[in-house]
Amino acid sequence: MTDIPKNRLSKSHISVAQNASGRSLNVPIYRISDNAPGPRVYIQSSIHGAEVQGNVVIYHLLQALSSQKINGEIILVPNCNPVGTNIKAGEYTLGRFDPVNGTNWNRGYHYDEEQVFSFADSVQENDTQEQIKQAFRQSIAKAIDNKLSQPWGLGLAQQLNLRLQQIATTADIVLDLHNGPVSTRHIYIPEYAKSAAYEFSIPHCIFIPNKFAGALDEATFCPWWTLQETLQARFSREFDFGVQAFTLEMGSQEVIQFDEGEKDAVSILGYLSQKGMLQSGDYKPASMRRIGVMLKDYRTMFTDFGGMVEYCVAPGQHVKAGDTMARILNIDDLDNHKAVQNVVAPCDLIPILHFPSASVLSGTQLYKCFTEYFEL
Amino acid sequence: MTDIPKNRLSKSHISVAQNASGRSLNVPIYRISDNAPGPRVYIQSSIHGAEVQGNVVIYHLLQALSSQKINGEIILVPNCNPVGTNIKAGEYTLGRFDPVNGTNWNRGYHYDEEQVFSFADSVQENDTQEQIKQAFRQSIAKAIDNKLSQPWGLGLAQQLNLRLQQIATTADIVLDLHNGPVSTRHIYIPEYAKSAAYEFSIPHCIFIPNKFAGALDEATFCPWWTLQETLQARFSREFDFGVQAFTLEMGSQEVIQFDEGEKDAVSILGYLSQKGMLQSGDYKPASMRRIGVMLKDYRTMFTDFGGMVEYCVAPGQHVKAGDTMARILNIDDLDNHKAVQNVVAPCDLIPILHFPSASVLSGTQLYKCFTEYFEL
Amino acid sequence: MTDIPKNRLSKSHISVAQNASGRSLNVPIYRISDNAPGPRVYIQSSIHGAEVQGNVVIYHLLQALSSQKINGEIILVPNCNPVGTNIKAGEYTLGRFDPVNGTNWNRGYHYDEEQVFSFADSVQENDTQEQIKQAFRQSIAKAIDNKLSQPWGLGLAQQLNLRLQQIATTADIVLDLHNGPVSTRHIYIPEYAKSAAYEFSIPHCIFIPNKFAGALDEATFCPWWTLQETLQARFSREFDFGVQAFTLEMGSQEVIQFDEGEKDAVSILGYLSQKGMLQSGDYKPASMRRIGVMLKDYRTMFTDFGGMVEYCVAPGQHVKAGDTMARILNIDDLDNHKAVQNVVAPCDLIPILHFPSASVLSGTQLYKCFTEYFEL
Amino acid sequence: MTDIPKNRLSKSHISVAQNASGRSLNVPIYRISDNAPGPRVYIQSSIHGAEVQGNVVIYHLLQALSSQKINGEIILVPNCNPVGTNIKAGEYTLGRFDPVNGTNWNRGYHYDEEQVFSFADSVQENDTQEQIKQAFRQSIAKAIDNKLSQPWGLGLAQQLNLRLQQIATTADIVLDLHNGPVSTRHIYIPEYAKSAAYEFSIPHCIFIPNKFAGALDEATFCPWWTLQETLQARFSREFDFGVQAFTLEMGSQEVIQFDEGEKDAVSILGYLSQKGMLQSGDYKPASMRRIGVMLKDYRTMFTDFGGMVEYCVAPGQHVKAGDTMARILNIDDLDNHKAVQNVVAPCDLIPILHFPSASVLSGTQLYKCFTEYFEL
Repeated sequence: MTDIPKNRLSKSHISVAQNASGRSLNVPIYRISDNAPGPRVYIQSSIHGAEVQGNVVIYHLLQALSSQKINGEIILVPNCNPVGTNIKAGEYTLGRFDPVNGTNWNRGYHYDEEQVFSFADSVQENDTQEQIKQAFRQSIAKAIDNKLSQPWGLGLAQQLNLRLQQIATTADIVLDLHNGPVSTRHIYIPEYAKSAAYEFSIPHCIFIPNKFAGALDEATFCPWWTLQETLQARFSREFDFGVQAFTLEMGSQEVIQFDEGEKDAVSILGYLSQKGMLQSGDYKPASMRRIGVMLKDYRTMFTDFGGMVEYCVAPGQHVKAGDTMARILNIDDLDNHKAVQNVVAPCDLIPILHFPSASVLSGTQLYKCFTEYFEL
Repeated sequence: MTDIPKNRLSKSHISVAQNASGRSLNVPIYRISDNAPGPRVYIQSSIHGAEVQGNVVIYHLLQALSSQKINGEIILVPNCNPVGTNIKAGEYTLGRFDPVNGTNWNRGYHYDEEQVFSFADSVQENDTQEQIKQAFRQSIAKAIDNKLSQPWGLGLAQQLNLRLQQIATTADIVLDLHNGPVSTRHIYIPEYAKSAAYEFSIPHCIFIPNKFAGALDEATFCPWWTLQETLQARFSREFDFGVQAFTLEMGSQEVIQFDEGEKDAVSILGYLSQKGMLQSGDYKPASMRRIGVMLKDYRTMFTDFGGMVEYCVAPGQHVKAGDTMARILNIDDLDNHKAVQNVVAPCDLIPILHFPSASVLSGTQLYKCFTEYFEL
Repeated sequence: MTDIPKNRLSKSHISVAQNASGRSLNVPIYRISDNAPGPRVYIQSSIHGAEVQGNVVIYHLLQALSSQKINGEIILVPNCNPVGTNIKAGEYTLGRFDPVNGTNWNRGYHYDEEQVFSFADSVQENDTQEQIKQAFRQSIAKAIDNKLSQPWGLGLAQQLNLRLQQIATTADIVLDLHNGPVSTRHIYIPEYAKSAAYEFSIPHCIFIPNKFAGALDEATFCPWWTLQETLQARFSREFDFGVQAFTLEMGSQEVIQFDEGEKDAVSILGYLSQKGMLQSGDYKPASMRRIGVMLKDYRTMFTDFGGMVEYCVAPGQHVKAGDTMARILNIDDLDNHKAVQNVVAPCDLIPILHFPSASVLSGTQLYKCFTEYFEL
Repeated sequence: MTDIPKNRLSKSHISVAQNASGRSLNVPIYRISDNAPGPRVYIQSSIHGAEVQGNVVIYHLLQALSSQKINGEIILVPNCNPVGTNIKAGEYTLGRFDPVNGTNWNRGYHYDEEQVFSFADSVQENDTQEQIKQAFRQSIAKAIDNKLSQPWGLGLAQQLNLRLQQIATTADIVLDLHNGPVSTRHIYIPEYAKSAAYEFSIPHCIFIPNKFAGALDEATFCPWWTLQETLQARFSREFDFGVQAFTLEMGSQEVIQFDEGEKDAVSILGYLSQKGMLQSGDYKPASMRRIGVMLKDYRTMFTDFGGMVEYCVAPGQHVKAGDTMARILNIDDLDNHKAVQNVVAPCDLIPILHFPSASVLSGTQLYKCFTEYFEL
């Protein structure tokens, strides 16, 4: 059981919303530090309410860190969305979007490209990298504060996102722990930090470009990536602010598995060790097969017809073009050859996740798949 | 692929409701007969919309019956609840109850004990069993018709139930195909038909008393059971009208598995063979271990606290008193010994099913369990 | 603004459940007393989460009571269902039933008729009415405690209900504040307390028999009513324990209106005044037209077909047999005479409430109506 | 009752999706023409499932058109989203977004600015306006076809939108009939067609720029607007293709009112009359006060705290800065001055719509308001 002395570990709560009873909805924040210099890491879990396994990963991180001296600081924010975790619709958790308006809980973080360009203009030739980093971080923090204090207010998802981002913005490394529906483990890695693929122990890696779509990893790395490129172009020299951000998909939603969570914690500790944050040499990345794909080749397969579905291939399995991926039963045609329709792979691919229900309307995302993938 | 000649197999549809677009919601009815005398069997599936595997079982029954001559008639009604199948709430199917008012789709069938007593009073000493059977069946059918034609109308779930029951009432044997949340295969058997436990190939059997709680199996056997007992008491001789009804739980909801469905179809064919409905000797009940329990000893285990749950024992597993059945993580206490709470077995038991989500409020049904069980 | 000194008014909270974040869900309890002898009143609101207007009534009761000396004690429990209030499904509140399993939040209170009979048997000829009352109340409280401490646990709705009932059981008068969907004000009154109809200022009164269907008013009065009748039969003399319970329907759900709430508070104060609980003579029942109906004549009108509905009569309006009550549009028949279907009144009636949505499936409760009603 | 001869009015259905029962979900298409030359108008309703009043408007349009000779053709598509209309969550319709993934049903239409530029490049100096119009329309239709026939498929909302847009693309005038939550009547008008404000009889007009956000009106006018501007810049002369598109908000969702729908139909007929489509002079725009606002000044007011809300101002009411717009009750503070919080107007404004529920979390859209508005 965790037994970290209070001088190493502190716990606090922040209020991110109020419910209809008028009560504050709080998120716990755990901070660990040994007052040794080093990076600051921010790790959150369960921004999508049904994706709960990250909470077990954080539990195991705390267990492991009780016997590890660290350089820098680790901030752990489990169950960071107290609204989404608590919306039940039937037996399952309706955790992916605000039930009032459909807003995805993971699309309201702040990024303003114009602000980066304008900040870059203000940088002086002889500013140190550390000075630039500090000033830029302040400018982001201020922009978020301004958004949050608008007189007309903000939507719930955006408020929640921005309050978390205020903390994440103070960190050098941001890990956002998610799950797929029924899913193998995979990770989203910005292209500029491609080598991080070897620092985690995760079999499937998606490399993403410098494009903001609203998520925390993008909101974290897009400004720094853009700033680096802008300053490089302007001053014709290299800049590296050392900020990295990743979305880790820790298997399937609606599942808690303590054993698997321990492995995921070990994977993260291996990465942190590579970043010099662990004083011991207890953890390192696994020797393993890793497969990569560019984001544009990570494809969604929709079904053209509705019915009852058997998923015939498992997440992570290598599938050949033409293989049957799903069989769909139509209950009006049980007496003829249209009773069962096969969905086949349009090319060689690896399914990474599939839809969690056996009943689908047409237009449902059956699978998300690696195509044109490569060994790392 | 099914290839049953049209003189053996007929297909029709009945309208069970209208949706908000004003359109009829239809249920398919498949009927197979070789015009040989024998019992009539009624088999329906998916009255609970997320419990879809029974549709695959019906598909496989049709496949198998294409090469089997039968005595009597088999009526197959897949996906008998077109409303419940199509209510999505997030990625899952909200199939257990009417989303408008919470009414369980499986509690609105008709049974009127007073009607049975009054019918029994009308029976004459020298009426034949067949005469009684026919007259009683008509009286039930008429009572259902009366309910359906009430000038003030009826609720949706009840209308749906009664329209299906109108067909089921014509049968001697009624099988209602269900699934549990995450579940092993099990069957509900009325105590008076206990020997049916050996005729199916299902490992877990729950014996239920003559008590009506609204479901189709009860609505089918309660009147006949009550009639038999009343007439026996009155005329001091045995009556057996040969009507049986069962609820079969074919594994877990939100799952389609064709291979498993084929096994379930074989189990049903074994039962029908025992009832003399298959002219070949191709199917018979499996030799296997069967475990029984009385309904009163089939217990629900609720959790006293909310949190994130790992289910530590699998459906069907034999668990000893004191064994850990679930571990519940509390994200506010990750820094102390209350981080994980264990839920232990209060006695020796077999979990038959567990809740399908990893997030629970207090008062959630974690498990349903056999206690005081026995070998059959 | 309320300004009741702390020696008159106390506030506390009880925890009624834990959510999936592992946190306690609390209900506020306000108690007012001037330490003068008199009855104890228990008033709760919003057991159905979308029925919020009772909270405003409680707010106004507190405002009014700040300048009223009282005899006895008044316990006010606003928003007594912190789960149901906070389930959003789209823009509305899914407050009527547990979203996990469809259990109506207002059907899990305790009543055990056998327990009453057995208690009645234990009463001695010369026990005083006060002694009997106290002993009976203890026996109910103990039965509730026993249920709540079952080793296998209880469902969420039942736990919530029983924790509230533990407090309500200490009271002589219980008022459960509800709302209809789109509704006029009405009240449920047990037949034995029929004269209470004149003590409230509510235009529509439903008289209900001694039959338990799970609600708090029934759970409160059924035991006392049954006890009175049992003891009267046994000892051939009158018993009156002075316990009364009512469900008050304060207009429409999903509506907060401070002005209307003040009128509702005045209506309740008039009743409490009649019970001798207000030392001033400031409040009394209104002179008004009151209409009553027996529960059996309070009928639900279901629609036989689905479509888009205009509600043509308003709650409270007197409708003649044959009058058009609703018009249902079918979008597939806009080019012919079936475009609009009329639903007509089957007899003279007063609609008390109607369904709140303009889109209905067949089998939807369009209206609930007084038939065979009478002036009081 | 409508009595349009079949040579004037035709009815057909298109399938827009399949449900989980494997059945087609159809949308009715009504087409009226007297084979006289003139524009083609496309009018759809209920893309958001709870916004049903447009269906009544279409009903009344058909009634009126039965006695009106027209120039051109009118295509009427009521209840164009058979999925969204039929998702109930509690008593209300969850009609705004796909319940599986939160996708707004009104954001998946097609627009590709690059395609417009590339088409504009292909236009020859001496192409006639009619030639350009026809070729451009074909290029849009082809782009939609290509999207719909992608081998990996498309999401349900997008498929639905594109199938409707295939028809709308053939029209010169597109009217998309919506409703607000609790709302006054208002209309979205592209800035280039500002004068249309005087052609409808709708009191509140929002002028929107040439910016695509996914809705049908934008998807219709953005390409033509962009093409006009591009060609004007290139050839230095005026182009006007006569294509207009509007979103009409016909009052509140979850309401059917035949009388109001007739007025809305008359408003649309007035507009069509101005466009020369009615051979009679029976209809013309009303003389009335009209208020306009630029889209940037149409502001959303979010609440900063959760609780029970009374909406103190009505849609359409003129409100002064500082006026109380909402009162929020907090049930934990009924004994102190924080019991009721007032939300005040930050400036002079007209609330156009408000949230339909009395229970709100923080971050809920309380009102949408005209600010900086002006008389037309």
